[in-house]
Amino acid sequence: MKFKKHVFICTNQKQSPKKSCGAAHGAQLVDAFKQAIKERGLQTEIRAQQTGCLDACAFGPALVVYPEGTYYGNVQLEDVNEIVESHLANDKPVERLVLPV
Amino acid sequence: MKFKKHVFICTNQKQSPKKSCGAAHGAQLVDAFKQAIKERGLQTEIRAQQTGCLDACAFGPALVVYPEGTYYGNVQLEDVNEIVESHLANDKPVERLVLPV
Repeated sequence: MKFKKHVFICTNQKQSPKKSCGAAHGAQLVDAFKQAIKERGLQTEIRAQQTGCLDACAFGPALVVYPEGTYYGNVQLEDVNEIVESHLANDKPVERLVLPV
Repeated sequence: MKFKKHVFICTNQKQSPKKSCGAAHGAQLVDAFKQAIKERGLQTEIRAQQTGCLDACAFGPALVVYPEGTYYGNVQLEDVNEIVESHLANDKPVERLVLPV
């Protein structure tokens, strides 16, 4: 296992009116996660990166945290610090955003 | 865990002369994985998709299989069926391509 936690954030953009996570929002989330991880000095053990469609379009903006395979939905920029602090750093998923997949 | 196995294939393209997995090769790998998974009727439990840089550029074309976090390097199109059959369907990683990360 190269990373203790590996976060894949959907940046997929579908044509309107199809719902999708969205390229712009996804890219902002990726940047926010990278910054929050770096601020805590965790960047060698935790990685966040963009990815394609996670098959959770209806619940986006979506991401998944491995190795546990926890899916999050409707993730907003203001949720990033909480996910990093609670889940990535302290192994406590943010239940209110976890998708029942 | 939404998927029993979730394969993230790097399609990141860096400017030459930097080594990178490559957009074209990565996209071909994604298609080949999706097809090989579908041919075996495993598409509801196993997912393969594109992703950004996996931080294994020097060993690319690279991919990672979760939940186990197994990194593969120098993956060619002719390796796809073996990885799907051996690792994804039968839990036996293809050791000759596994990266020591």
